[in-house]
Amino acid sequence: MDRAHAEALDDADPLKRLREQFELPAGVIYLDGNSLGPLPRSVSRAMEDLLLREWGRDLITSWNKAGWIGAPQRVGGKIARLIGAKPSEVVVADSTSVNLFKLAAGALSLRPGRRRIVTEAGNFHTDVYVLEGLARIAGAELAVLPRDEVLKAIDEATALVVLTHVHYTTAAIWDMAAVTARAHEAGALVLWDLSHTAGAVECDLNGTDADLAVGCGYKHLNGGPGAPAFLYVAERHQAAIRTPLSGWMGHAEPFAFEPRYRPAPNIRAQLCGTPPILGIAALECGVDTHAGATPKAVAAKGRSLCELFIRRVEDRCAGHGLKLVGPRDVDQRGLHVAFAHPEGYAIVQALIARGVIGDFRDPDICRFGFSPLFLSHAEVWDAVERLAEVLEHRTYEKPEYRVRAPVT
Amino acid sequence: MDRAHAEALDDADPLKRLREQFELPAGVIYLDGNSLGPLPRSVSRAMEDLLLREWGRDLITSWNKAGWIGAPQRVGGKIARLIGAKPSEVVVADSTSVNLFKLAAGALSLRPGRRRIVTEAGNFHTDVYVLEGLARIAGAELAVLPRDEVLKAIDEATALVVLTHVHYTTAAIWDMAAVTARAHEAGALVLWDLSHTAGAVECDLNGTDADLAVGCGYKHLNGGPGAPAFLYVAERHQAAIRTPLSGWMGHAEPFAFEPRYRPAPNIRAQLCGTPPILGIAALECGVDTHAGATPKAVAAKGRSLCELFIRRVEDRCAGHGLKLVGPRDVDQRGLHVAFAHPEGYAIVQALIARGVIGDFRDPDICRFGFSPLFLSHAEVWDAVERLAEVLEHRTYEKPEYRVRAPVT
Repeated sequence: MDRAHAEALDDADPLKRLREQFELPAGVIYLDGNSLGPLPRSVSRAMEDLLLREWGRDLITSWNKAGWIGAPQRVGGKIARLIGAKPSEVVVADSTSVNLFKLAAGALSLRPGRRRIVTEAGNFHTDVYVLEGLARIAGAELAVLPRDEVLKAIDEATALVVLTHVHYTTAAIWDMAAVTARAHEAGALVLWDLSHTAGAVECDLNGTDADLAVGCGYKHLNGGPGAPAFLYVAERHQAAIRTPLSGWMGHAEPFAFEPRYRPAPNIRAQLCGTPPILGIAALECGVDTHAGATPKAVAAKGRSLCELFIRRVEDRCAGHGLKLVGPRDVDQRGLHVAFAHPEGYAIVQALIARGVIGDFRDPDICRFGFSPLFLSHAEVWDAVERLAEVLEHRTYEKPEYRVRAPVT
Repeated sequence: MDRAHAEALDDADPLKRLREQFELPAGVIYLDGNSLGPLPRSVSRAMEDLLLREWGRDLITSWNKAGWIGAPQRVGGKIARLIGAKPSEVVVADSTSVNLFKLAAGALSLRPGRRRIVTEAGNFHTDVYVLEGLARIAGAELAVLPRDEVLKAIDEATALVVLTHVHYTTAAIWDMAAVTARAHEAGALVLWDLSHTAGAVECDLNGTDADLAVGCGYKHLNGGPGAPAFLYVAERHQAAIRTPLSGWMGHAEPFAFEPRYRPAPNIRAQLCGTPPILGIAALECGVDTHAGATPKAVAAKGRSLCELFIRRVEDRCAGHGLKLVGPRDVDQRGLHVAFAHPEGYAIVQALIARGVIGDFRDPDICRFGFSPLFLSHAEVWDAVERLAEVLEHRTYEKPEYRVRAPVT
């Protein structure tokens, strides 16, 4: 196998033109779109229009005139296509963490009498932290269990199972249909975190009878730093679910100024405060970068990129102590690949200095993301070449790559 | 009194140059900066830099390199000056509604054993709605009482009193020192909503021994539509307060990936999900429009604008059925003025058609805001002239002004 093989894959890539949608710095191979998607070229003009015309000129009237008030549902409706949901089941709101709180609390309201929430140890930590906070205030019990004990722990006392569909380090994928069926059998609900799924991996919420989901706007949806998140509530749950974050935008009539809260009978009940219009505008541009491809084609290219990366690392970097984390089979994983290495932090820094941007996750994980909308197989090839050089020359031993930047 | 009087007030106005900071449409008198502050001219360039350089070119590295990770505290620190707090006591996060939930829940954690929350009937409705949601999930009791019964209702079972400092219609101001003293006497805490206070009215959180506060970024702080909100926790409460919205950004070490939540020992514990960087960038520009004036000078000019408006309405519009809502004395009110009128909706529409933008609040309230950073006394004069014309000619009776726009 040589570089021509990668080039041939690129020639045959039906998505290759989608890269033109992004502003990417020259000379950089960006393997971190799973952490922060790159800038869609359309954002600058959309933002200028929003600032100068909608905010600057039309001022308060833009809430109706420019459709600001409907933006959370409009953009949610576009995300629905990427996750196998109906447009009326998805809305853009708040952060993933806040949405997880809303829907996990909502699940408790849908299963009165059940007080047990089950999740996976090693799930993305903010998910576990938020469930801890909910369990304390709601008087629920939180069970944080090893991955292989989660399914059997679902019992008649379980209100909710909370899992991240694609694991944030291993990229292992839960079988959404099987988990949902098992939970429903016990009368429990499932809340999926789709942060590493949406825009990357095929996902059929409706087809698997999914109940609830949340997800991130700034990874594969390319919505920008700290973009608003999204959430999904299956139609059948929308009338009955109750969120404790009962803000005015979730009221059946937000501008009727009724003295008591009366939830909207639809997905809008999951809104809380005033929607973040600037953030939603950028997110809409990001979501629209997916308009030219089917989720199936995106996922297929992603698997092809991951397969090439793993194979090339196996070939070129053998004997340097990199250990693949998560499944070898790309059909069983999402679109990032993690390798553990005792010098992981320094390796990632040395790669960044060579123009290959990945990220590091404590304690020893080098994580590389393979976004199908803008990466080529040739870039994957070149990234592994640079990784091999860093390992062969032990470049990572240079002191400047070992100093950890303080997090402020 | 003639227009020359208003012009003389403008000549003597020490803040008159601050108007140049804003992009305002020609021919419009904008009396709705209390609902959506106008566009600061600095936002376009700041946003372009954020998009093209920080996001587009530097990508994920901007979390440290461009200081994104510290933005909530940096901008919170700037807001602190406007509300009489220490920079270390204020942080930018989420929406006002979500922040109210966090801090009201936090107050319950600071007062274990007490389960009563007291608020005012007619408080801004999202505040009451959110407290309803909290009371239900936390097993607390919510007492929603007429304004003159709030103080006497504070008893030994009361954990928290939640009040909006400047009322959203009447603009009546609560005596922050007196309410806080009364609550503390009973062992209760007070949570202030400063949405109509910050950037408008003098406020001394530290001087009045205030416990907790939240506020809005898109009104007098000019942060843009749906701007991130802010919150305040007095230093003495920061170590002990616990929020159920315990997301990763509030963890003592967000990137240490510890399995269990351990709150930051400072104001950062009130962060939840990833901070909304685009929204915070615009908000920072908005907050910076206040940099050239003291809160005292801003409030003084605001009172002068309100006084002129009320006097001119009394003089020019008498006999047309407008009823002032809230205190006549401008020392006892915030920077918006509401008049009730059975044809309120149509009057506001007719005024908008004449280039005077105010807003309408159900059932019959015409509300006009007087933002000291960009309004002149001459504009106030002219606005009342147009209001008088609308009333004298009964322009508001035209059918096109009576059709209510549907809220979608």
